[in-house]
Amino acid sequence: MSERVYLDWNATAPLRPEARAAMAAAFDYVGNPSSTHAEGRAARHLVEEAREKVAALVGAEPRNVIFTSGGTEANALALTPALAPAPGKTGCSRLLMSTIEHPSVRTGGRFGRDVIEDVPVTPAGIVDLDVLQARLQGALATGLTSAVLVALMHANNETGVVQPVAAAAERVHAAGGLLHVDAVQAAGKIVCDIKALGADLMAISAHKLGGPKGVGALIKRSAAVHLGEPLLKGGGQERGARGGTENVIGIAGFGAAAEAAGTALAGDAARIAALRDTLEAQLLAASPEAVIFGKEVERLPNTTMVAVPGLKAETALIALDLAGIAASSGSACSSGKVAGSPVLAAMNVPAALASGAIRLSIGPATTEHEVGAFITAWRKLVAGLSKRGRSVAA
Amino acid sequence: MSERVYLDWNATAPLRPEARAAMAAAFDYVGNPSSTHAEGRAARHLVEEAREKVAALVGAEPRNVIFTSGGTEANALALTPALAPAPGKTGCSRLLMSTIEHPSVRTGGRFGRDVIEDVPVTPAGIVDLDVLQARLQGALATGLTSAVLVALMHANNETGVVQPVAAAAERVHAAGGLLHVDAVQAAGKIVCDIKALGADLMAISAHKLGGPKGVGALIKRSAAVHLGEPLLKGGGQERGARGGTENVIGIAGFGAAAEAAGTALAGDAARIAALRDTLEAQLLAASPEAVIFGKEVERLPNTTMVAVPGLKAETALIALDLAGIAASSGSACSSGKVAGSPVLAAMNVPAALASGAIRLSIGPATTEHEVGAFITAWRKLVAGLSKRGRSVAA
Repeated sequence: MSERVYLDWNATAPLRPEARAAMAAAFDYVGNPSSTHAEGRAARHLVEEAREKVAALVGAEPRNVIFTSGGTEANALALTPALAPAPGKTGCSRLLMSTIEHPSVRTGGRFGRDVIEDVPVTPAGIVDLDVLQARLQGALATGLTSAVLVALMHANNETGVVQPVAAAAERVHAAGGLLHVDAVQAAGKIVCDIKALGADLMAISAHKLGGPKGVGALIKRSAAVHLGEPLLKGGGQERGARGGTENVIGIAGFGAAAEAAGTALAGDAARIAALRDTLEAQLLAASPEAVIFGKEVERLPNTTMVAVPGLKAETALIALDLAGIAASSGSACSSGKVAGSPVLAAMNVPAALASGAIRLSIGPATTEHEVGAFITAWRKLVAGLSKRGRSVAA
Repeated sequence: MSERVYLDWNATAPLRPEARAAMAAAFDYVGNPSSTHAEGRAARHLVEEAREKVAALVGAEPRNVIFTSGGTEANALALTPALAPAPGKTGCSRLLMSTIEHPSVRTGGRFGRDVIEDVPVTPAGIVDLDVLQARLQGALATGLTSAVLVALMHANNETGVVQPVAAAAERVHAAGGLLHVDAVQAAGKIVCDIKALGADLMAISAHKLGGPKGVGALIKRSAAVHLGEPLLKGGGQERGARGGTENVIGIAGFGAAAEAAGTALAGDAARIAALRDTLEAQLLAASPEAVIFGKEVERLPNTTMVAVPGLKAETALIALDLAGIAASSGSACSSGKVAGSPVLAAMNVPAALASGAIRLSIGPATTEHEVGAFITAWRKLVAGLSKRGRSVAA
């Protein structure tokens, strides 16, 4: 597929060369990291080296990194009523979450529906901090003696809109609550420091930043934060937080990808943002009626969510795919589903427009040539649309 | 570590060449299997090919294979009160499990302690079918209208003792119950056919049969069996049974390893059993007072659990490791823990003897030369023991 143009980096990123090399090297590590013999210790060393690299990417201590099978498991592990600020402290009896969270946050936690409250977003796709504040005060006003858990993502997977996490953290902590941040789309694309953000917990995923699919991490800001009942129990791995033999090869790839992403971040982000801005300018020139969601606010440097009135996403994606271009209509998880984007619905985008939304997401390996190829295909797409539009109107 | 002798295949097996090649090839698959574009469809194809290979190893239909992050997650997913013989049917209100199950079964399910009953094993390490029968009848006698779930492993991870799964299945089904079989240690070592065994659910793990660590599967005998509430929710992957982007590279390796293990099984098992018998004969010749657990009953062809009165496992394992030999004192998960083997305790082995237990587990790549190297080291170990024994006695 060397002639293909891959513009779906938010669904999953190609494996970085560093991750590939680390995984190939890990093939030779025979041992189980829990074994005490030389082979076991070597595998353990590999896992712990990766843990240091993942911790460094988000400014955490290695001992506070819990490896999981991905972002979904990390979110599920975090969102439990047993979560407490410290061992022995009372857990969380209420969950507040933004309406634009990933499905693994929206539906993946261990809270009953009756103790979950939504926090809406503005039309630009930013969580409404005033409503968050009101919800927190409302919870306190009921005489709640346990903590409120708030789930707010760092950047949205569909629009790329960056959320005011640090400002939310201030409000959450002032109310005695805990904050979980799904940073799956942000990590490796923008600076993502768990302490600066004020997140108590943070979920990240390897395959969004150039590591392999099927590995992620839940990261604690402080060792004191207590996860309560693990989701996977058994051999007591990950300091008792997550049972099961470690995905050694995947973890090695994750560590290498995290290190490479962190090193390249500053330069990559600027270059990618410039390329994305070029893409958007040319796209708007070709189809001035196009709406780019969240364009007026801070977004990830690599993401464009766009809709053109009258252009159906399904039609567009098939045409683009045939033209050699991989794009998506939102989260890959939701591909093939009939329902429109819940993120755009939460932003009050009219359903007719939202149903045409296409997500273009680029990455460190994306070239100007590829963006040019996309724009050529896009021009054909919208030209056909105009003709059809005219013939229907005629 | 080319001069090392690896005798800890039950903790984790070296990667098979076929798995290594499949994983390296999968590095180039860019797409997310949930994406509908060409890259996504290619990744989906890779996952589904692997699903067919894993299904073939255990005689299941591919659509009944649910990929997980390993045996621990597969067991946790299976052991839920929501498990029902078919959608809409009542779930399981009671869990019966053998006393020698893996920790991920013993402690990993979603049943309350008050609805779990143990089924003991004989001194040879085989589940007591009469007690199982009595427990099933006891459950029925209480007027239970929901199903009883029984967890019985196919072969024990420490002793290798093969359990009478088909006979248990008859009793379980006669009582209207469901049977979950943890076949993590059996799959790839002995024939493991879900229909012949009569298991309703079966857990297997890639890394025990030459695939990578961090990937496994829960397999249903029939598509009707309903898992109820998934453990990981989100994008609806694995037909809604397990959310989260698939571990594509790991799954590709799992498929290749399962296929290779299945093809080689008959020949490998015979050769490995012969080598293991040689090892045991020479070991008993060197230390006639050694006790080999489960030797009188059917065991996996590759496993020897042995203790010599007066020989401490910790001392022996350190000495063996220094001599270049990797062995273990039981399950890798339990390494470093002070508590003795719960499996041997369940078999009523005296604690003093059990505390010396050493597990030797071999595999397809184990050579006669390696067994010879182990026996040489073992002779030194027990010779030192006899001297110490004599000097203490003197």
